[in-house]
Amino acid sequence: MPYSPATADQLLAIRVNAGIEELAQSERFAAAEPDMVEAIVEGIGQFAAGEWAPLNRLGDLEGAKLENGVVRLPDGYAEAYVHYVEQGWNAIAGPANSGGQGLPFTLSCNVLENLGTANMAFTLLPILSVGAIEALEHHGSEAQKAKYLPDLVSGAWSGTMNLTEPQAGSDVGALRTTAEKIEDGEHAGKYRIAGQKIYITWGDHELAQNIIHLVLARLPGAPEGSRGISLFLVPKYHVKEDGSLGSHNDLRPVSLEHKLGINASPTCVMSYGDNGECIGEIVGEENRGLTAMFTMMNNARINVGNQGVQIAERATQQAMAYARERIQSARAGAADKSPVAILEHPDVRRMLLRMKALTQGARALLYYTAGQVDRGTLGDADARARAEICVPLLKAWGTDTGVEVASLGIQVHGGMGFVEETGAAQHWRDSRIAPIYEGTNGIQAADLVTRKLGMDGGAALTGFLETIARECAHEADLFALAGDCAAVAHWMREDASLDDRLAGSVPFCTMMAIAVAGWQLNRQLAMVAASEPSDAADAKRVAVRFFLDRIVPEARGLKAGATGGAATLYELSAEQLVG
Amino acid sequence: MPYSPATADQLLAIRVNAGIEELAQSERFAAAEPDMVEAIVEGIGQFAAGEWAPLNRLGDLEGAKLENGVVRLPDGYAEAYVHYVEQGWNAIAGPANSGGQGLPFTLSCNVLENLGTANMAFTLLPILSVGAIEALEHHGSEAQKAKYLPDLVSGAWSGTMNLTEPQAGSDVGALRTTAEKIEDGEHAGKYRIAGQKIYITWGDHELAQNIIHLVLARLPGAPEGSRGISLFLVPKYHVKEDGSLGSHNDLRPVSLEHKLGINASPTCVMSYGDNGECIGEIVGEENRGLTAMFTMMNNARINVGNQGVQIAERATQQAMAYARERIQSARAGAADKSPVAILEHPDVRRMLLRMKALTQGARALLYYTAGQVDRGTLGDADARARAEICVPLLKAWGTDTGVEVASLGIQVHGGMGFVEETGAAQHWRDSRIAPIYEGTNGIQAADLVTRKLGMDGGAALTGFLETIARECAHEADLFALAGDCAAVAHWMREDASLDDRLAGSVPFCTMMAIAVAGWQLNRQLAMVAASEPSDAADAKRVAVRFFLDRIVPEARGLKAGATGGAATLYELSAEQLVG
Repeated sequence: MPYSPATADQLLAIRVNAGIEELAQSERFAAAEPDMVEAIVEGIGQFAAGEWAPLNRLGDLEGAKLENGVVRLPDGYAEAYVHYVEQGWNAIAGPANSGGQGLPFTLSCNVLENLGTANMAFTLLPILSVGAIEALEHHGSEAQKAKYLPDLVSGAWSGTMNLTEPQAGSDVGALRTTAEKIEDGEHAGKYRIAGQKIYITWGDHELAQNIIHLVLARLPGAPEGSRGISLFLVPKYHVKEDGSLGSHNDLRPVSLEHKLGINASPTCVMSYGDNGECIGEIVGEENRGLTAMFTMMNNARINVGNQGVQIAERATQQAMAYARERIQSARAGAADKSPVAILEHPDVRRMLLRMKALTQGARALLYYTAGQVDRGTLGDADARARAEICVPLLKAWGTDTGVEVASLGIQVHGGMGFVEETGAAQHWRDSRIAPIYEGTNGIQAADLVTRKLGMDGGAALTGFLETIARECAHEADLFALAGDCAAVAHWMREDASLDDRLAGSVPFCTMMAIAVAGWQLNRQLAMVAASEPSDAADAKRVAVRFFLDRIVPEARGLKAGATGGAATLYELSAEQLVG
Repeated sequence: MPYSPATADQLLAIRVNAGIEELAQSERFAAAEPDMVEAIVEGIGQFAAGEWAPLNRLGDLEGAKLENGVVRLPDGYAEAYVHYVEQGWNAIAGPANSGGQGLPFTLSCNVLENLGTANMAFTLLPILSVGAIEALEHHGSEAQKAKYLPDLVSGAWSGTMNLTEPQAGSDVGALRTTAEKIEDGEHAGKYRIAGQKIYITWGDHELAQNIIHLVLARLPGAPEGSRGISLFLVPKYHVKEDGSLGSHNDLRPVSLEHKLGINASPTCVMSYGDNGECIGEIVGEENRGLTAMFTMMNNARINVGNQGVQIAERATQQAMAYARERIQSARAGAADKSPVAILEHPDVRRMLLRMKALTQGARALLYYTAGQVDRGTLGDADARARAEICVPLLKAWGTDTGVEVASLGIQVHGGMGFVEETGAAQHWRDSRIAPIYEGTNGIQAADLVTRKLGMDGGAALTGFLETIARECAHEADLFALAGDCAAVAHWMREDASLDDRLAGSVPFCTMMAIAVAGWQLNRQLAMVAASEPSDAADAKRVAVRFFLDRIVPEARGLKAGATGGAATLYELSAEQLVG
């Protein structure tokens, strides 16, 4: 099922929600003027739809395979990656002094949105590289930047993040991989790494010439828990001083996970130092590894929230195409008893519009968040705070939305949706990872009701909600939802225990996300209403009205759960709960 | 992952919601006295957990396969089916004059619940046989009943339902399979069947000695659409007058679907009459085939709603077991920094209690509905009307609940939930068919807002909601939800067009289902509160409170969508919508 990039809606969101024109007035982002933005959005859309989308189903069917110790991708992936690198797409937002274009993060989000809509599993490769680039850019030494960044920025090399171990998932501090400083010899000053990591996305492959693994490990005598963790750069192939590649480091993929979806993305168990000769460099200071990780985590979470938008867009397009072609039953109550395309039936229209409204709402939230990140980079502290607040909303609700929309996509297909050949089922399977990785959605919600709720003594969140209420006073449901959110936030700060807050965190996170998305859709609506009448303007108005009139009221129904408290949850002992 | 049958909660629901003791006071169901009921519930629970559950994962991994024209199941399935038949479980609710025990439908639901919790895909085999038994019982001739029912009731033979064709899914009337009466010769009076059917569940296999296919087809010159459809009985092996099996009929499985889940259930494309020699008998009158189909459809829809309960129970048990064993992170804010079992974390508790509350709510609705069916069989017209109202609620919301709970099950597992070996993903994949087959959930909702809303001039539904409101006046949220439902129903009847009703049908269906489930849980709570304190009573109280205090308010948020009307949905042309 081919798809067309959602170029027009992306451009609208980039203008209205990210505010790209204002960003381009800064010296730093001056290159992001309208022609350039359009060229990028259109260019990556066409490239991704043309070259990456056709590989999506093949990647699901054949998947990545570990053969004789080497990870193999299906035919076509290597070429498609090379073309992506050659055309410079990997370097869009990379630092200018390392060969990047230094464009706003907003545009990097757009590159990823288009790639991921075409092929979610494949796009994890550049997403992971972006994470490694950010960690090195902010915490690497000048020598490390010079040595590793240019090839990571171009995409010639890829990056990975190695956090998880079997006993250390959400609790990264429990990890056991070790690092020991090498005092003498060829590698003096470097570290010897030993341990196993799991769930390493694109942990091995041969699409890039080298892989830069960023590995969290523990030094001898380091403090327990998360304060005793350091970050190491561990290349697959050693990099010589002249930049050429040396021998293979002592690391290898042990096995690949057999997953529910994203089968083209190799999820590796990685072993470091089987022979005691895995050599890495420290990034940043000893025992400060988690700080470095957190630097990149915000943007990584945005990039995963973005995946919710991607899979929702793809599933929506597929369902729309099917619903237009599939002829079944006459319109209920119509004099004409001839069967019609199923999109003429009211409940199918409802499903399709819901898919569209949710997708556009998640996209509006994505670009609003990205725009605030870019403003933060320019020094706007308020924007930085709003980005901080929006990151868990986007990651959690955006990815939940991806699953919901993909499920609606199956439902629109009826029995065909359950048959794998149709492709609708793949989107649903692929979508299900996003609420889990990069911090489960529960962890996002915990972040919201602990760190984010308390920022600036609570004023950041409160002020944010006041802005929404002020701008949306004419939208009764949205205004009421913003009021509900403020009431929940007040209760959480003033009357709730930490357990109470956590017990209500997920429903509160959803309420907040829908409020922000509704607000940003409302801004799009205002912009569209001010322009010439057009089909696109009509379609936008209907989608936004669906969101404001039907989805926003649903979010109000979550208030009881958000303020229900923890007492009920702990009335039962573990045995009673499980029994 | 082994599981324990939910015997205690099933018995509670069978007593409180189905009212089995009252049923047993009738002559017809006198055998359903307490000891017998307990023996059945406990017996089938143990049998299913012991013999069918261990095959569940194998069935997913290996699946049914078509080899040389014959459908093969993984090792163990044939033996497990034979044991099921030998122990008499297939005959529980079958008609007494055909070797069945004639027990209430409620107990048949319990047999299926236990089998399906153990192995959802496998249980489709008896579910389809039950459908064939019902159709024959109500519409077959005495000769047909004598010839075919005993072996169907015992389970020695199985049955299938053949409705769907590529162009005839939800619109059964569009089918093209033909039947022609044979005037002379050996098969005089029978019919020659020709056509292809798709999505035929357990359409072929070698577990039973014979397969009785019920096939919808069209006679020459029959009226167009659904009024020109007749029902035919087409055996895989011809049955001789002495009851022994004759030659193989001219029918065959052409291929199996490659599905998202329920892989152990062969979903066949069936071909009838490749050689012009497929012989069948008519069931009931010519052109009245859909009436016969509708007879069994109500119970079949209940049996599919039941699958939502099943997968929810299984997913909940698996998540509970994992959450108790998985040690990760200290309790937030606790002085003790040692990691705890994840069920100690507030949001994990929230997920587990939500799973439990939804599962028990769906089960309460299931047995309430089944009990009303049984009362209807005894001649209670009000009960029959309530069963009619509840069938779409249970089928739609019950199966949506199965998907939601299975998804929560994945989330509780974190990254492990996305790895197929864990088994949580299988439940989610399996769950996804139930909202589609046996009438999509959209079709259930349409049934609610057309036929069911208008029953008895609207009085049936209104009176039902008044009963709920009266009994639940002390539960503010549930009382309010019943009021919301009444207001929606009133608007639909008085002020809404057919399109408006259909546009709001799915949210209304969910609201209604949650109101009925909450009401029935509330009855359980009253019963439990009146009994001795116990762990089970505590656990029930907490689950019901979760449902009433958090899930019921969410349903109130659906009112806006239920009354939003169709105008917005049709503002866009098909091109604008899709574009």
